[in-house]
Order: sequence, then structure tokens, then C-alpha cells
Amino acid sequence: MTESIIEQLKAAAKAKQFLQQFAPDAKKVALEAIAAALVQHEVVILQANKIDLDRMDDEDPKKDRLLLNSVRLRALSDSVRQIADLADPTDQLLLRKVLPNGLEIEKITVPLGVVGVIYESRPNVTIDVAALCIQSGNVCLLRGGSDALHTNEALVNVIHAVLDTQGIPKDIVQLLPVARKYVSELLEATKYVDIIIPRGSQSLIDFVRANAKVPVIETGAGVCHTYVDKTADLDMAAKIVANAKISRPSVCNSLDTVLVDADVAATFLMKLAPYLEQVAVEVFADPIAYRILEDQKFSNLVAAEEADFGREFLDLKCSIKTVEGLDEALEHIATYSSKHSECIVSSNELAIERFLNIVDAAAVYANASTRFTDGGEFGLGAEIGISTQKLHARGPFALEKLVTEKWIVRGNGQIR
Amino acid sequence: MTESIIEQLKAAAKAKQFLQQFAPDAKKVALEAIAAALVQHEVVILQANKIDLDRMDDEDPKKDRLLLNSVRLRALSDSVRQIADLADPTDQLLLRKVLPNGLEIEKITVPLGVVGVIYESRPNVTIDVAALCIQSGNVCLLRGGSDALHTNEALVNVIHAVLDTQGIPKDIVQLLPVARKYVSELLEATKYVDIIIPRGSQSLIDFVRANAKVPVIETGAGVCHTYVDKTADLDMAAKIVANAKISRPSVCNSLDTVLVDADVAATFLMKLAPYLEQVAVEVFADPIAYRILEDQKFSNLVAAEEADFGREFLDLKCSIKTVEGLDEALEHIATYSSKHSECIVSSNELAIERFLNIVDAAAVYANASTRFTDGGEFGLGAEIGISTQKLHARGPFALEKLVTEKWIVRGNGQIR
Repeated sequence: MTESIIEQLKAAAKAKQFLQQFAPDAKKVALEAIAAALVQHEVVILQANKIDLDRMDDEDPKKDRLLLNSVRLRALSDSVRQIADLADPTDQLLLRKVLPNGLEIEKITVPLGVVGVIYESRPNVTIDVAALCIQSGNVCLLRGGSDALHTNEALVNVIHAVLDTQGIPKDIVQLLPVARKYVSELLEATKYVDIIIPRGSQSLIDFVRANAKVPVIETGAGVCHTYVDKTADLDMAAKIVANAKISRPSVCNSLDTVLVDADVAATFLMKLAPYLEQVAVEVFADPIAYRILEDQKFSNLVAAEEADFGREFLDLKCSIKTVEGLDEALEHIATYSSKHSECIVSSNELAIERFLNIVDAAAVYANASTRFTDGGEFGLGAEIGISTQKLHARGPFALEKLVTEKWIVRGNGQIR
Repeated sequence: MTESIIEQLKAAAKAKQFLQQFAPDAKKVALEAIAAALVQHEVVILQANKIDLDRMDDEDPKKDRLLLNSVRLRALSDSVRQIADLADPTDQLLLRKVLPNGLEIEKITVPLGVVGVIYESRPNVTIDVAALCIQSGNVCLLRGGSDALHTNEALVNVIHAVLDTQGIPKDIVQLLPVARKYVSELLEATKYVDIIIPRGSQSLIDFVRANAKVPVIETGAGVCHTYVDKTADLDMAAKIVANAKISRPSVCNSLDTVLVDADVAATFLMKLAPYLEQVAVEVFADPIAYRILEDQKFSNLVAAEEADFGREFLDLKCSIKTVEGLDEALEHIATYSSKHSECIVSSNELAIERFLNIVDAAAVYANASTRFTDGGEFGLGAEIGISTQKLHARGPFALEKLVTEKWIVRGNGQIR
């Protein structure tokens, strides 16, 4: 084991220059070839994946995320092909002007440069990030979890073999070693790395935020609320809340807390309860909601503590709080939201516009499930994650945002 | 002295809500009133400024930066009026679509929220930042240097008095106490502060980058090169280099290092030397340039050490290095540049395009002085600084970039 990844980082910075002269066609050709090679090398990839799976405890919930099979590998391959079909986000002219002194100024989009991604055990991240970075002309440094080591090595080997036949430097896609100490080195490498994206658990994101000197785009944690106003169509509200919680509880755009106007709480919860009972959702209820659900003989009921609000459950669990109208709902959301996706269900236009205007979140909804916050759903293609911070990218962070700007100034001797 | 600024931070986060409902007119009216009040309260402001100046050593170079007088106060007032005339960057529709399922999706610009600015002794930063934040609907937290304490208090008092008469919460513009410990509190306040902008010396920027958990936009340090190609018009090259170094050496877009093709080094340096001699620029020269300048009896000559390349001089000093052609120049810039402003002087179109394409910097120039990298010069109005990183804003960071995006989704019961 080497003592430093500095040589890898230097090679990445050097490979940037190649990518800045990358013909748009070459990207598409390379991605199509990678898509084909992934399917072609199925046996080798699945063998490597089996080594990783065999090392993992059968009860480990990460096992399913790590698992590859023919169907999933084909889906990965399709994803690469879809990325190859997206519009190239680089070299877009954003502004052009000629100053009175004759200077010609252009602002164009250019690749970010070297993108470091720190993630956990999903092999699809390896492929999606590599494909998105190739299509946007960025070098990527992949630091996946140790659980997925052999799988990631097999996937990156397939990519490297393709790049090699295309005459593209392999250094544009690099897998970093998994030891912890290299993560610190990556986070401090301001000289070689332009941006770090942590993708995974809140603890991973917190660690990166606390330790990175390289600029970071945070993706991830979603503490999502749905507020049911007293004017809401309560049947619709129950369906929206149930969908936001149940359709895929393990993802960041799923519902964590229901806020319901006290005036309609009893009727609404009567409509909601059957949906939640059906899949045994555990409910952490405030005193009023608790009494209502208890009366309805709701089975999986817990008295909410303070810590159950602002909690990202990522599971078939949610908290419920009754509020005295919109202002209290807004106040609650301002206090507990992670600024990801927030929803109001209402038929009062004024209340809706006030909510959409005041709530500070990447995506704000009226009368629809928060589960739609997704690059694919919004028509942006594969995403690297959902950004919950405000700089550069907010909400789905997809291909279009893997660029920065560059000012180009052409003169004939102008001085100031 | 209080033990914490938490109450100020909370008040800032709360004031955000007011600004999200701020009528565009109200902003303009408030800024016009502030512009008038600054001139009207000249006596009080200059008295406060005198207290700060009297505390400072006469030899301190910061004294001139801190000094206010009638003329400078009028310039501050004019700057506020100019900002009031800039287009409101918020509430711009970036994208609108209706999905097949009927969901209406909009992406609009919204204020960042709470903007913290950490700076040194220039009182114009206080006024420019406050005015830019009001015009973009942001709350600002101003943490100026202790040298300027009384001046900043007087300026913010004037702003507060105006806000008060307009019925606008004073919490939208807050001066933070100067003690060091509060800076750490500000840098970690991810719950209340949306973005931190350090504005000042490299050591300040490094401190903020190393310690902030709140996202940071870096502005500042410029290690700027001008490469004189062998095909350059050498008279023009000498004028451009002289202007980039001499016109205002204390700012970040001024020249630090000249790279000159060895083939033309002797002729070029003969043309450049008189400009440098005239204002006694101290030159740190590599062996070849040293010999040439020594032959020409250049007076202020030092043999360059490794540390003289990649050094931001901010003074009448520069380093000179001879190179064997464009590739060596590109390599040198990739190694030592701070990615601010870089220039080629050449009459070879291929060399120019290669330079503009490959050099990784916020602004790249052909045949013009790097001194043009400036929000005002680029037509963006007053700037908060020059961003040398790649996320969100690159190059002049002005009003247009004091916003983030928000996705607004309107439905009628859609679930996924």
C-alpha cells in the first residue's frame, strides 16, 4: 500500500488538459463503447461482485444495494447510453459583448475539472458518476466504500479497457484506494481537486463538511414535511401523504413528518390511518394526534419526543404533529426542515402561494407527493444527488451543473 | 459583552421571511433613502471614522483604506444609488414545464437567505455589501475588522435609521461584534447562515476555508501571469505587462509573473525595462532574464528563488521567467496560477486559442491587460469580490450571483 495518493491526484490534474480538448463526438463514442462493454464483461463483473457479497453478512441491509445481476448490469449499461444522449453542457455561450474600448468578452461553460466523489456501497454510483463526468469533460476520482471494492475495481477495469482502445488517458476515471487516511488527503487537495461530492449517509456528509478544504456540494439528507391545510381535499391529502411515505421510504425525498391543521386532524387521520396500517408504518404522534389515532385503534403508535421532529427516518416510520394553521406549520418547517422538499395540501390559493413563497427548500410542492424531487422526474437525466445547499446547484444535481464558467477576453493591446 | 451571537443569527434567519415578501419597489426606495442619508449624516460618520483613525498608527498602510472624507462618502452614496438601479436578480423564471402527468414545474431565482461577510478595514465593503444584499433580498451579517469598528457602527446606524422609517426590520443588516470567537460561531452556524464570503488577505481566506462548515465563496488571491509569445508585438506586450503591474499593484488582478519566450526575451525586456524603472519595480528574475537585465543595468534586480513564482506580490514587485515556448508557459501557469486572470500576448491565432482553451482560470486574456477582471469593467456593477473557485460564481461575483434556485411544483393530487 502506498503512503499517499498524491501521484493519482497529480495525474488527475494533468488529465484535465486532455479533456479540455476532447471532441464532443469522442465522448459519445466512448460512452457507447462503455455501455456495450459492461454487458459484454458480465461474467467478470458478477464474479467480482460475488467476492464482495460473500464477505458481507447476510443480514446486512447494504447487501441488496451492493448486489449486481444480469438485469441490474443491463440497467447500468442503459443508464450510460442515456447519459451519452444528453446534451453536452460544456462550451455553451452564456454571454458575449464588445466593450466600448474594443475588448471582446465572452462567458462560456467549461468542465469543473477534477471531481471527487465519496460514496458507499452502490455500484451504480461508480458507473453513473464516471459516465456523467466523461460526458461533461470532467476527470473523476471515485472513492467507493470498502464493501464494494472488488466490484468497483471490475467496473473501472472495464471502463479503462475501453478508454485505452479509444486513445483516451485512463487517468480521467480513477478509483481511489479505500483506506480512511486517503479520504483526508483527498479533502485537503485544493491544488488538484476542484470539487468534492459526498453521496450517502448524513454522517458521511457531516464528516466531509467538517473536514474538506476543497469546495463541497452537499447532497442527501431530506427531512421532508407535508402540511395538510384545513381547506385540503382530505382524500387527496391522505393519498399524497401515503405515497410520500410508503412508495420508497429509504430515499431522501420520502416524507418524514405530517403537519395537519387541528381543525381537520381527526377526519384526515381517519383517512390516512388505513394506508399506514397496511404496511405497518410506525407513527410518532404528538399528544393530539396520539389521542385521535389511539381512538381509532391504530396499532403502531408511539408518543413523539422532541427528537422525532427533524428526524430523517428513511424507513416505514413518520412523525405527526397537529398545528393551529399555516403560520405554525411554516414556523415548524423553518425550524426542522433540511431544505430538501416540502409540501402543502390545500385548496386555498392564498395559503398555497404563501407557503411556496416563504418555505426555504430546494423544492416546494402544492398538492403533489414530494417523491417527485428527482433528476429523472424533472427531465434532467441521471443525477449525482439532490443538493440541499444553495450554491451552484440546488435540488437535483445532474449533468447540466457539472460545469463552471470561464471569462474569455480578446483584445488588441487594451490597457486600463 | 455577550457570550454568543446566536440571538443575532436567529434574528437574521427570521428576517429572511420578511425579505421573501419584499416588494421590488421597496428595495429601491430603501436604497435611495440610504444613499441620501449617508451624505446627510456626514458629520457623525466622519467623527466616528476619526476615532478609528486616531487609534491607528500613522505608518499603518491600512490607514488610507480606512479613511473616509466628504469625497469618499459621496462615492459610497453614489455606489448605493447605482446598485439600486441594477436589475433585481430574484424571481427570474429559469425554466417552466408541464410534465405528462400534469405537474407544473418552475425553477426560479430566490435570495440566498443569510449572507455572512468577513472582511477587514475598508468601510466601502460595509456599504456595498449591505446595498447588494438589500437589492437581492438577502439578510447580511457584517463582520468587519476591529480597526473600523466605530466607522462601521456609524454606517450601520444610518442604515438602520432608514430601514426603521420604511417599516423594514433592522435585522436584515446586522453588524457582528469583532471578537475572534464570534467568527468561529459564524463559520459553524449552518442552521442560520447560508453562505460565507471572506473578503481580504490570503490568510483570512485560508482561515475561513479551513474552519467554515457553512458553504464559502472564496474571493481574492490572484497570482496572475502574462505570457509573451515569440510572435507577440513586443511594444504592445511591454505596454500590457507594464499596465498589468503598475496601474494598481495592490489589487488581485495585477500582474505577478511575466513569462517570456527565450527567443524574444532580450528584445522584450529591453522594451519593458524603462516602464519598470520609472516606478522602481523590483524584479525577481530567473538566471536568463537576470543576465539580460543586468546587461541593461536594470537597478532593482534580484535573483529569483523558487518561492518568487506563485507569489502574489500586491506591490511594485514582479517575477520574470524565460520559457521555451507555449507548452512550458502552460505548464508553469498550471503549477503556479491561483486561477484568477491569465494572459497571452501573441499574434499566432493557434497559440492564442490553445492558451485560452487550456488555461484553467476565471478569466483568460489574449492581448489585453489582466487589470480588466472587475465587475464594473465587465458591466456587472459593484462586486463582492473576484471568485477564484469554480462553484456558483467564477470571476467577478456581483449582484446577479447573490441568488440561488428554487423548484416550485404545482399539482392536483399527483403521486409517484
